[in-house]
Amino acid sequence: MAGRTARRRITRVTVTETGVSAAARADLLAAEEPLGIRVDGTALTMTMRTPGDDVELAAGFLVGEGIVRGRDDIAAMKICDGTTCGHLDHTDDEIGNIVDITLAPGAEVTLGARRNFMTTSACGVCGKTSIDDIRLLPRTPLSADGSMFDPAVLTTLPDRLREAQRVFSATGGLHAAGLFTASGELLAVREDVGRHNAVDKIVGWAVLQDKLPLSGCALLVSGRASFELAQKAVLAGIPLLAAVSAPSSLAADLAQEAGLTLIGFLRGQSMNVYAGAQRVAV
Amino acid sequence: MAGRTARRRITRVTVTETGVSAAARADLLAAEEPLGIRVDGTALTMTMRTPGDDVELAAGFLVGEGIVRGRDDIAAMKICDGTTCGHLDHTDDEIGNIVDITLAPGAEVTLGARRNFMTTSACGVCGKTSIDDIRLLPRTPLSADGSMFDPAVLTTLPDRLREAQRVFSATGGLHAAGLFTASGELLAVREDVGRHNAVDKIVGWAVLQDKLPLSGCALLVSGRASFELAQKAVLAGIPLLAAVSAPSSLAADLAQEAGLTLIGFLRGQSMNVYAGAQRVAV
Repeated sequence: MAGRTARRRITRVTVTETGVSAAARADLLAAEEPLGIRVDGTALTMTMRTPGDDVELAAGFLVGEGIVRGRDDIAAMKICDGTTCGHLDHTDDEIGNIVDITLAPGAEVTLGARRNFMTTSACGVCGKTSIDDIRLLPRTPLSADGSMFDPAVLTTLPDRLREAQRVFSATGGLHAAGLFTASGELLAVREDVGRHNAVDKIVGWAVLQDKLPLSGCALLVSGRASFELAQKAVLAGIPLLAAVSAPSSLAADLAQEAGLTLIGFLRGQSMNVYAGAQRVAV
Repeated sequence: MAGRTARRRITRVTVTETGVSAAARADLLAAEEPLGIRVDGTALTMTMRTPGDDVELAAGFLVGEGIVRGRDDIAAMKICDGTTCGHLDHTDDEIGNIVDITLAPGAEVTLGARRNFMTTSACGVCGKTSIDDIRLLPRTPLSADGSMFDPAVLTTLPDRLREAQRVFSATGGLHAAGLFTASGELLAVREDVGRHNAVDKIVGWAVLQDKLPLSGCALLVSGRASFELAQKAVLAGIPLLAAVSAPSSLAADLAQEAGLTLIGFLRGQSMNVYAGAQRVAV
């Protein structure tokens, strides 16, 4: 496993009124490497991620796929060190880039229930591309979460997320996700080249802390809010998802149906509330 | 199939010195819906995309997975209208949201070669998560493409891409990809909630026009450049990929190895060249 950033030689090119100048220099890039997730000894998926918090990423991914509902569903989690997994053909690239998760008795991988396994559903795309089939809902409806959020607190969160980001200012290449309490306390912040990975790392952090469902919390993402992110919030029991930029139509629709408060364009002193406005104290 | 944007009722909340105000209003969101891609009658994958240019998206996706190398590899492409595909259990959601592609004789789906099918490789994540296994290279190396690009032309492309975007200004929620000639002529622009989809749509447009490989062209993306986007450019035979924001380390490494010119932070009058600087005329 490499670090979160990687140094590369670049050429900085600038166009001026008198011509073009070029200068060689070193630049710091956001690291991106493949991570394999193996459940009960079987390859489940591979994701391109920024190294770091890999066990959290794997645990959070399983929550977002509806496989894991809490810490109790996981018997063991470890990063494969190349000797203990029973596979003998590791390359150097693979050491540290595979997470092995053993589910607890009773938890199981149900192939049809998971979006990322659409690819395996031989025949029947017809039966799998409808929105109903990819929508997963938690056992306890989010609508039961009566938390209230103060807009004056919400408007402070983007600056606090940016302050908490350790890597962004150096590379400019990472998405961030931050988990806050309703009073604005920062519980966790994670970064990744993939926005879904940043959210998976947050949710996985909560799994490891045995904090699911995340009732009363707000999740802030640095970019846009897609269906996928809304679904991850819903399955983690997070009642409020806020994005600095725009949500998609399907994110808004899922939020409406699942009882998730969805906020977009959280910038300066204002925000757009796309669903669940009853939680925003006006 | 819905349109590219969707109207929703929102609550605009503003924090002022004297309190909090809230106003109901309509807002335009970027549409997001699942698209199923079926090859030779078998479900291949599902992607969340902004409706529009769906056949192009499917064709471009197949290029990026190394399945299709040009127009000749495809015998037929059509959007499933719910009557011709032999599946009888369509819901309304599915009509218009599935693309059927029939490969030409000789072209074939080789499961192991494709990244997005990692999920199906039972056992052996070990054998699949190494970078070598997910890296696909084109038959004709990009290094054979001797095109040159003028930095003064490159610096004009971001503004031209923004001008060409029809939806972005309305929703703020879409990624864009634009294909240009070396002299700066805009050949095609596509938008999507997913940046990879925007690039697939561009490449698919080229497939339908029988323009692959896209020698001598520059591809500009509105956000960051990941490994995935660099690989899509390489497989489409595009010699230069430019991003308005940062590339990842793996994108830079792939570009270096594949002979792709990779530019990041293309803003104002300057840019960072991460690989293939010999094509940038200084």
